[in-house]
Amino acid sequence: MEKLWTENLRKIEPYVPGEQSEDKDIIKLNANENPYPPSPMAEQAIKEFNADSLRLYPNANATELKQVLADYYNVKTNNIFLGNGSDDVIAVAFQALFNSDLPIVYPDLTYSFYPVWCSLFNIPYKTYPVDDDFRINVEDYKEKNGGVIIPNPNAPTSIGESTDFVEKLLEYNQDSVVIIDEAYVDFGGESSVELTKKYENLLVTGTFSKSRSLAGLRIGFAVGSEKLISVLEAVKNSYNSYTIDSLSIKAGKASILDDEYFKETCRKVIATREYVTAQMREMGFKVLDSSTNFIFATKDGCSMKDMFEYLKTKKVYIRYFSIPRIENYVRITIGTDEEMAIFLKELKGYLQK
Amino acid sequence: MEKLWTENLRKIEPYVPGEQSEDKDIIKLNANENPYPPSPMAEQAIKEFNADSLRLYPNANATELKQVLADYYNVKTNNIFLGNGSDDVIAVAFQALFNSDLPIVYPDLTYSFYPVWCSLFNIPYKTYPVDDDFRINVEDYKEKNGGVIIPNPNAPTSIGESTDFVEKLLEYNQDSVVIIDEAYVDFGGESSVELTKKYENLLVTGTFSKSRSLAGLRIGFAVGSEKLISVLEAVKNSYNSYTIDSLSIKAGKASILDDEYFKETCRKVIATREYVTAQMREMGFKVLDSSTNFIFATKDGCSMKDMFEYLKTKKVYIRYFSIPRIENYVRITIGTDEEMAIFLKELKGYLQK
Repeated sequence: MEKLWTENLRKIEPYVPGEQSEDKDIIKLNANENPYPPSPMAEQAIKEFNADSLRLYPNANATELKQVLADYYNVKTNNIFLGNGSDDVIAVAFQALFNSDLPIVYPDLTYSFYPVWCSLFNIPYKTYPVDDDFRINVEDYKEKNGGVIIPNPNAPTSIGESTDFVEKLLEYNQDSVVIIDEAYVDFGGESSVELTKKYENLLVTGTFSKSRSLAGLRIGFAVGSEKLISVLEAVKNSYNSYTIDSLSIKAGKASILDDEYFKETCRKVIATREYVTAQMREMGFKVLDSSTNFIFATKDGCSMKDMFEYLKTKKVYIRYFSIPRIENYVRITIGTDEEMAIFLKELKGYLQK
Repeated sequence: MEKLWTENLRKIEPYVPGEQSEDKDIIKLNANENPYPPSPMAEQAIKEFNADSLRLYPNANATELKQVLADYYNVKTNNIFLGNGSDDVIAVAFQALFNSDLPIVYPDLTYSFYPVWCSLFNIPYKTYPVDDDFRINVEDYKEKNGGVIIPNPNAPTSIGESTDFVEKLLEYNQDSVVIIDEAYVDFGGESSVELTKKYENLLVTGTFSKSRSLAGLRIGFAVGSEKLISVLEAVKNSYNSYTIDSLSIKAGKASILDDEYFKETCRKVIATREYVTAQMREMGFKVLDSSTNFIFATKDGCSMKDMFEYLKTKKVYIRYFSIPRIENYVRITIGTDEEMAIFLKELKGYLQK
């Protein structure tokens, strides 16, 4: 018989994190990680870090890092919120900003963590299906709601929407908080950060994990009005005062300051993406126009699940989702040119089987 | 007029983190930080860290770090939970384990974050006053409740209770989850980790921030039954899959492996604490018997608030709480012998004013 104390344990379906492998031979195109290392300036910041100072708590406001981000986005430090990866930032935002009895709304095909947070924080939600081309129809978002969250570019579809789209969304949702999740924006998307100056109810979130190659350090951020940021800070400070560790503050700062390296890395990923897209289309794949560091693709008459499993035997890991509507698509992270050459070779091998 | 969208913002009193100063001349005895640097092995782990690997997400389970902790405490890795500092660990535990309509219970004088988490997660709570000697009366904890959390040693009182006390607490609370918060245990307290093998409803939490001098890195942990840990993991994985960054995993691991350094550092802090306690008692202070890296003290006929403010002008920062029952006490973190000599000198200066 179950003991009485087990009655008060939270019943929640555990989210299972994606597959991780220690095998160095694997070509890992399944987690949207950047194939290039972080800025050498970030590396230097770690090497030069005074380890003795770790005996002290980090600066609770991570002011140094907020300052370079504020300068970068041309806002003030009290327009910036920082978290332990953008998952932490968005989780705090859900708790802080989505407290309505009305459902929050987002597209049916989107980041799989949104319903998980809704379940964890007891937030009602409703999804609007994307159309047959996987585009979000902004006209769907006119109904009264408890808040809006849309990733732009969207994942796993890779499609980016314009800032005109976002401005129309804001026009339709003047009574709601609107979150635009820009995890992938640096690979060719249109950022809505400038719109936060015009719309006090707009929060834009970002991450150092993709375009800045710092997934291992856990740095996410949000840009928004002082009003929104102050509520995020109040919730964060009620949870944990020191989320960003001292090393991440220094390395994150160095990454922002090395803008040349950042731009060059993004440019390389985009160039490779365009090449791989063209190659796959030549092979008969339907590849969506991507504004991200991954591509979303399918092929008529060809099982993507089977292809995914075949590539795995060749030590090329891509991502397959058994989710309705996209059960015959795969998501492929853009690696280096060398990695993508092997991917394309194995893909040809599969088609010629 | 307030806009409609502001209605759904969370109304919460922001917790204000303690004072931080960049002034290097300050003798900082106000945050219970360790005066000694982290293990040289942890420093080396950071210097030797392969920064290129930061482009990848950390291992979601932080297995390497869990393994050394499991070995250290003689348990299995599925008896270990890790978080972004012990505040994160306890916040997750509140969400995961305290889901009763009955109030959770804890002492009136204790860690100030407990009521903050109760407010954030809408958990009812009730406090039992500690006695006039600031001791916790275990007989108070017989009433039916929604869970129990007790710091042992307690803060800010510095008093440690025995494992016999904890075992009696567990005997009285077989239908509740009992959390023992051992943030300060390594400075002479009695750890209840062994009891987690006997009591499935016991969770013991710890931190690398005090005794391991790694406050800057944010590593907290919990030890408990597989049942309790699996619920913590489910909630954590519904919030953020990658809380512990790659550098913290390596540096934390190195710290655990350097047990000799760890023990030597704790021994030094304890020796200094005993010396300062004796000196202050000679000066007429009432100093509680501490099992922590801080002391809690008062002096009849002397305003501790005034003394706190005087010491601040001398660049010696200690901690004063304007909290009923302890409004004439101060909390003093144990620094190096050199720092404490200056502290004692300034204290004499104040008394001779």
